Amino acid sequence: MIEPSLPEDREPIARVARSAGVFDKEEVLTIYELFDDYARDPACGYNFLTYRQDGQVLGFACWGPTPLTEGAHDLYWICAHRSARRQGVGAALFRRVEADCREAGGRLLVIWTSGRSDYAPARQFYERMGCSLDGRIRDFYYPGEDLLIYSKSH
Amino acid sequence: MIEPSLPEDREPIARVARSAGVFDKEEVLTIYELFDDYARDPACGYNFLTYRQDGQVLGFACWGPTPLTEGAHDLYWICAHRSARRQGVGAALFRRVEADCREAGGRLLVIWTSGRSDYAPARQFYERMGCSLDGRIRDFYYPGEDLLIYSKSH
Repeated sequence: MIEPSLPEDREPIARVARSAGVFDKEEVLTIYELFDDYARDPACGYNFLTYRQDGQVLGFACWGPTPLTEGAHDLYWICAHRSARRQGVGAALFRRVEADCREAGGRLLVIWTSGRSDYAPARQFYERMGCSLDGRIRDFYYPGEDLLIYSKSH
Repeated sequence: MIEPSLPEDREPIARVARSAGVFDKEEVLTIYELFDDYARDPACGYNFLTYRQDGQVLGFACWGPTPLTEGAHDLYWICAHRSARRQGVGAALFRRVEADCREAGGRLLVIWTSGRSDYAPARQFYERMGCSLDGRIRDFYYPGEDLLIYSKSH
């Protein structure tokens, strides 16, 4: 069900991201960019995972080693299709990211996310997954949009 | 006394960094890299400032816009030569960085630093400068080496 993303997952993954309704155009372009880096060179530092059911891409995650650290990884994106919410897609992806990080020698997963109100479900998700809130920088992204930092030790 | 760094400040700046005694070889190489980017293209996103007295480089700072934000800046490096400590070099550099950030439309200065014991003087410095500690990720860089995040609004 969850496997390293295939080249043909590029568009379905972008569709999943768009369906979430919280990412703007520029953010979706960033997903394309990271995906292309990954498709060209799996050792580029961005790992993509696809959650697939009956041939449909229902979710994806993207993670990679945190620069300047030994054993920390960033969870860059984790996303389920809007039509597949509350079915455990996100939780399954999260557990798989954790397992892959551990296998890569990781000790710690770090998540940088937004304090915007439309990110509340994402923050609740990280808390359900056992992440701790380690910091908040007020007005980081934009006046009124804080940065929140979560982490989870393996 | 403080001005945008000149190309010939490359070596003196590296000497200042080495004199601090907390940066390893790789970190000093990073300073060279960022400085070369700056020297080639002042709009590269890394701005260097030199504190000069009687023709001697006593300190430097490096800052730039924080990716993905509108109006936040990272203070990447700020450093006084070991022989010029407790003379206000760091404080003068910090105030100049703040002024330059404001002039560049900045609202917020962000500092990512280490929780290592040899960084204690750096952390005390940021606190003296009025920065607030917004977060701490345990064991971020390395087991036993936390990430600390400070910020200051302009």
